[in-house]
Amino acid sequence: MRGQLRADAQRLLRRPAGDGLARFGSIAELRERARRRVPRPMFDFADGAAQDELTARANVEDLAALRILPRPLVDVGEIDVSTTVLGRPIAMPMLGAPTGLTALTHHQGELAVARACARAGTIYIASTMASYTIEEIRAATDGPLWFQLYVMRDRGIARDLMRRAREARCEALVLTVDTPRLGSRERDRRNGFTIPPRITARAVVEGLRRPTWARAFVREGRLGPANLTGGLAEFAMEIDPSLSWRDLEWVRGEWDGPLVVKGVLHPDDARRAVELGAQAIVVSNHGGRQLDGAASTISALPGVLDAVADDAEVHFDGGVRRGADVLKALALGARVCLIGRALLYGLAVGGEAGAARALEILRGELELALALAGCPAVGRLDSSWLLDRHQERAG
Amino acid sequence: MRGQLRADAQRLLRRPAGDGLARFGSIAELRERARRRVPRPMFDFADGAAQDELTARANVEDLAALRILPRPLVDVGEIDVSTTVLGRPIAMPMLGAPTGLTALTHHQGELAVARACARAGTIYIASTMASYTIEEIRAATDGPLWFQLYVMRDRGIARDLMRRAREARCEALVLTVDTPRLGSRERDRRNGFTIPPRITARAVVEGLRRPTWARAFVREGRLGPANLTGGLAEFAMEIDPSLSWRDLEWVRGEWDGPLVVKGVLHPDDARRAVELGAQAIVVSNHGGRQLDGAASTISALPGVLDAVADDAEVHFDGGVRRGADVLKALALGARVCLIGRALLYGLAVGGEAGAARALEILRGELELALALAGCPAVGRLDSSWLLDRHQERAG
Amino acid sequence: MRGQLRADAQRLLRRPAGDGLARFGSIAELRERARRRVPRPMFDFADGAAQDELTARANVEDLAALRILPRPLVDVGEIDVSTTVLGRPIAMPMLGAPTGLTALTHHQGELAVARACARAGTIYIASTMASYTIEEIRAATDGPLWFQLYVMRDRGIARDLMRRAREARCEALVLTVDTPRLGSRERDRRNGFTIPPRITARAVVEGLRRPTWARAFVREGRLGPANLTGGLAEFAMEIDPSLSWRDLEWVRGEWDGPLVVKGVLHPDDARRAVELGAQAIVVSNHGGRQLDGAASTISALPGVLDAVADDAEVHFDGGVRRGADVLKALALGARVCLIGRALLYGLAVGGEAGAARALEILRGELELALALAGCPAVGRLDSSWLLDRHQERAG
Amino acid sequence: MRGQLRADAQRLLRRPAGDGLARFGSIAELRERARRRVPRPMFDFADGAAQDELTARANVEDLAALRILPRPLVDVGEIDVSTTVLGRPIAMPMLGAPTGLTALTHHQGELAVARACARAGTIYIASTMASYTIEEIRAATDGPLWFQLYVMRDRGIARDLMRRAREARCEALVLTVDTPRLGSRERDRRNGFTIPPRITARAVVEGLRRPTWARAFVREGRLGPANLTGGLAEFAMEIDPSLSWRDLEWVRGEWDGPLVVKGVLHPDDARRAVELGAQAIVVSNHGGRQLDGAASTISALPGVLDAVADDAEVHFDGGVRRGADVLKALALGARVCLIGRALLYGLAVGGEAGAARALEILRGELELALALAGCPAVGRLDSSWLLDRHQERAG
Repeated sequence: MRGQLRADAQRLLRRPAGDGLARFGSIAELRERARRRVPRPMFDFADGAAQDELTARANVEDLAALRILPRPLVDVGEIDVSTTVLGRPIAMPMLGAPTGLTALTHHQGELAVARACARAGTIYIASTMASYTIEEIRAATDGPLWFQLYVMRDRGIARDLMRRAREARCEALVLTVDTPRLGSRERDRRNGFTIPPRITARAVVEGLRRPTWARAFVREGRLGPANLTGGLAEFAMEIDPSLSWRDLEWVRGEWDGPLVVKGVLHPDDARRAVELGAQAIVVSNHGGRQLDGAASTISALPGVLDAVADDAEVHFDGGVRRGADVLKALALGARVCLIGRALLYGLAVGGEAGAARALEILRGELELALALAGCPAVGRLDSSWLLDRHQERAG
Repeated sequence: MRGQLRADAQRLLRRPAGDGLARFGSIAELRERARRRVPRPMFDFADGAAQDELTARANVEDLAALRILPRPLVDVGEIDVSTTVLGRPIAMPMLGAPTGLTALTHHQGELAVARACARAGTIYIASTMASYTIEEIRAATDGPLWFQLYVMRDRGIARDLMRRAREARCEALVLTVDTPRLGSRERDRRNGFTIPPRITARAVVEGLRRPTWARAFVREGRLGPANLTGGLAEFAMEIDPSLSWRDLEWVRGEWDGPLVVKGVLHPDDARRAVELGAQAIVVSNHGGRQLDGAASTISALPGVLDAVADDAEVHFDGGVRRGADVLKALALGARVCLIGRALLYGLAVGGEAGAARALEILRGELELALALAGCPAVGRLDSSWLLDRHQERAG
Repeated sequence: MRGQLRADAQRLLRRPAGDGLARFGSIAELRERARRRVPRPMFDFADGAAQDELTARANVEDLAALRILPRPLVDVGEIDVSTTVLGRPIAMPMLGAPTGLTALTHHQGELAVARACARAGTIYIASTMASYTIEEIRAATDGPLWFQLYVMRDRGIARDLMRRAREARCEALVLTVDTPRLGSRERDRRNGFTIPPRITARAVVEGLRRPTWARAFVREGRLGPANLTGGLAEFAMEIDPSLSWRDLEWVRGEWDGPLVVKGVLHPDDARRAVELGAQAIVVSNHGGRQLDGAASTISALPGVLDAVADDAEVHFDGGVRRGADVLKALALGARVCLIGRALLYGLAVGGEAGAARALEILRGELELALALAGCPAVGRLDSSWLLDRHQERAG
Repeated sequence: MRGQLRADAQRLLRRPAGDGLARFGSIAELRERARRRVPRPMFDFADGAAQDELTARANVEDLAALRILPRPLVDVGEIDVSTTVLGRPIAMPMLGAPTGLTALTHHQGELAVARACARAGTIYIASTMASYTIEEIRAATDGPLWFQLYVMRDRGIARDLMRRAREARCEALVLTVDTPRLGSRERDRRNGFTIPPRITARAVVEGLRRPTWARAFVREGRLGPANLTGGLAEFAMEIDPSLSWRDLEWVRGEWDGPLVVKGVLHPDDARRAVELGAQAIVVSNHGGRQLDGAASTISALPGVLDAVADDAEVHFDGGVRRGADVLKALALGARVCLIGRALLYGLAVGGEAGAARALEILRGELELALALAGCPAVGRLDSSWLLDRHQERAG
């Protein structure tokens, strides 16, 4: 704790450096810098969402609208943000969310983010759509990995990916169920964003305006999803829109480790997934990138918790930009939060160190929020910390 | 379905063309282009609404505020958006709404929109106030038509219009009941919009700034409502403000096909119209063009459904700009949505092909929304897909 | 009614004139023009409100937020907006609200507004603080007048004013009870607004920029309240902050005609005023010019109606800018609406004819709103026309 | 009262002076002027709050959203804003809130604010973090003082501070419990704000642009917290994050005068603090400077009042910018309001006289609000003055 106070003190003493990652003090600042470093189409691919982005905005705004009732006079000399997720201890209640084609944000892509997560003592969830193969990611880090699976038309691909994930010592499988088709990302369409990118006059101009990114990308960048063959369009062709609960049973049979089902908002679906053997549910709307008009994740979280909290873990995804957002989701009952865009902003700014900085910021904010809220350990959070919940119970 | 996936894939592969309708990917983009192609007074006539446009805005905003709870792991390999309306099969749950003086938006007016609807496998509702006669519209397409009727002082006109509608094989009569007088469209007043338009210096200047529209309009345009004699002002004179429930009985007696009553927001009126023989109710506030201050249609829809859903179809009109809006209205219980302004924006941009593009966009968005919401057929939608409705039932 | 339709038709046929009052089609347009005709300090005196103007804004916004459920198929060939107020027939349910120092807006001040009200078949409420004496106003018009009374320290002044009001054939006395002190009008303070105005460099510059207003004001304008001696500052000195319920009893004893109590928001006060002999209550917060933070009048109206509707009339004041606002207040249960700023905007634009135009606009909008809402007479309005009220009763 | 009316009158007669504090008529105007007088980093230190400043904004906005139901016809000839706090009579229900490093806003810092409070007949709460020692503050004024205590790691410091506070005749001890660590003030970080400030090029430039402030500060300014050794960073190191309820008991034992606990939002904590011997609770979120995301104080106030109003006083802190805000907090049940930023804005503008002007504005606004609300004495306020509260009781 004295270390944390020292950090507080240094924050006050230190003039922000002209360079260096330490001068970025919030995810918003990382995002702003990322916007100026990464070519627009690549930034928008990571930052954007479906259609009018109503759901993506609601994720953030509904979280911000929740109000905390802090508790004073609790010894917060030691703040314990460590927890376990599916039995595995992690240093903080945040996981690296699976993101596809991460090398478009920074040429080191998932390698960098996975290392940053390991350094932070937490799990990285490698995506089926990653720019680097699961073997490359495993080679880059000894940290704990989970594997996110899209089940495609050819079930052999899924079986193969599960085998590779097992061999890469992935400790859990995260089955994404909200992508029977790709959402309509209008920024991408307007940007003429394609995978692999075409060499067009506009692309060259964009590259010249972002020379650091472009040089690195030309030397070492990855264009498509490395676990698969072909680009995003091929992937869109191979998505299996007929995926059903039977396939969940099949996956459950194929994978003998812990199974997480990601992309659930409806309580009945959460219950069914748990009955079919899922150990955890990720309440997620894919960051607002799939169905625009879907409920914000924080508005759907209580219903899912009511349905399955006794029998499974509930993980939260969507809109986390501050440590206090993590506190709120955990106070409602989530076990951990998935961190997606925040890590990408950090990655864009400084590769592995930038991604690590993003986690450091969120962890620091969470610790500070817990200390100020009078909660010395994330495990003690409950809904008595939230104004409206408290009033409901009293009312 | 694979065709749809291919479309998704092509969307990702294809750079938006420098021209061609395919590059318009949303109704908002069509509207923006329409605004720059059509002279201001004509654009405002189509786009505008009454007074402060509170109701027109509420139509759109109240729809956007509804939140969907998507259901995963449902086989959405085939999405069936076909339905029936009054017993007639249609390819998608959207009808071409009746709009008056459509040739002011594009010289081909209703001919183009009717053909686009037919091509899309759905019904076009020709307006009493159309720029082309019902006979001309019928000659332009073999597609299914309905006829929208204003009953004017001289009941002979209505009887004559019904006869002509029958002869033109219109399958249903849509009696509009929300126009005992014309609403106050302040944009039109400020634009000095008159029917027929006057040749003023300002009109000439506007024409020179929109040469494509102006040339076509001068060669082939229509000024007034073709089914009637005289312009909008004459129409305003002939509207019958004394229209009453007795007239509905009279119309019911004169027209032996299906009867739809359009312009109902109050549950009691819906019930009465059904008791007097209407087969369907269109919940509509005339797109906010009549009474500014009227409830948004989505806020009035549940009350009307409670009143008559067992005995009649309920159609929804007002504020639909996205496929997800259709999903929401149908999840509440509407059978189909009427598409008005969206078709006019498409028409303005590309005549028949533009109107067809508007329907193609909405249909594609609806299919995608259904797939992402886990509903393989529009017929299965119910209120369990809506967050607040779900919470109400649980609460 | 055919006359009204003819007006609708003419609206469509007629290009708005380059000049003439007919081209102003809404109160907002009159306000915009007034802002450019009247020197800023004088405009702000009329247009502004207390402090942050929270209450003034809430008056308008809370009215706009109410939603109407229109009723179709009702014979609205004749719209009857006539009503009675305290037994007196008036041509429309709007009264000219008492406004002080009206000559600052236009040199003819209350003379012009009173004539406009008479022409419109309704009552004008002359203010104690009027720029013209009650005798001058009576000389200017034969129309029905009420007199608004401030009771000042010297009760003799009030007794004298009541005598003069009686002699001027004022039919009712409106006792304003919300002004024990003057509200803090920050625009006035920032403008250096004083009564009488000082001749400063800034005033001269303002005058030169608004020459029409200035010339007329110099020739014929009135500076202070004519019924009293001294200016606004003297008035502020003479206000009696100790006014109490006992004074209401005293006034009740002195005045044997109908008594209206203006400036009530709390149900208990409405009840007490009626018990002490008031025939009507005006729900008013002085247009937001007194206590900033006071409830909007439309939010307070239902409570007052519940308390006294069986025993007295309830009049509505505050935020009326559209005919539909009148419809809403009457649907909740108000008998008439007071029209203040709207009349001043009209007055500023065109003197008596401008004030008359403001009433003409509001009356026309009300008739149109009633027709479109399916209510042929204001007397038939009730809360079934309002969405939320309807839902409450159903819920 | 006649004096107040005279003030009203003078306000109307007097053109705002080109200089002089009288021309500042609202806290917002003082803030605007302060922003232009004080170097940005110093202004932001006082004006800013934690992270996204959600809580700071909510404090202000939630107060503004409360609606008052004024009561007319009550004798408000004399408005009594005097009250007692912990038994001590004060001239108005506002206390000078403890603020740290006040000399950064104006070189006379707490000396000036304490004198202004004394002049206004109320209490000033000197902060542990004040720029001047408690002995210096006591030497500057004979007015009533309280002392705000931070308990640091070295309990000897707290014991010493309590002794000094007692010797300086501080009448109560205000134990702040919401600062186990310092909140994250992002404006400060971005400004490179440090204590003591560094002499950098930017600082010199800032100083040259604010020469009045800079000259005075160089001659007489204080850099660090005078009661302690070291700057803000050292303070951050010495804060005791392990402060707990046991320490409250210890303080209760050490201090035999009245004890106030500041920084409570949760009802259970209020109850516990009272059980442990606190005479008053300050509902405070540290002006939004600690936990961003904490509930606004006005939203938390009712819960705390329900918990302890029978056994202790409840003081209100956060967001007060208008006299009507004080009325609202008192109507809910608070005894007094703490005034922080408003005093600093005044101080920045005119030192002691400026701080006095801020209190004069708030007192004048409160008196006016009470008069217009029909409440002649703050002691009579209750929740019947608030619209929603009234409706709740009726509903």
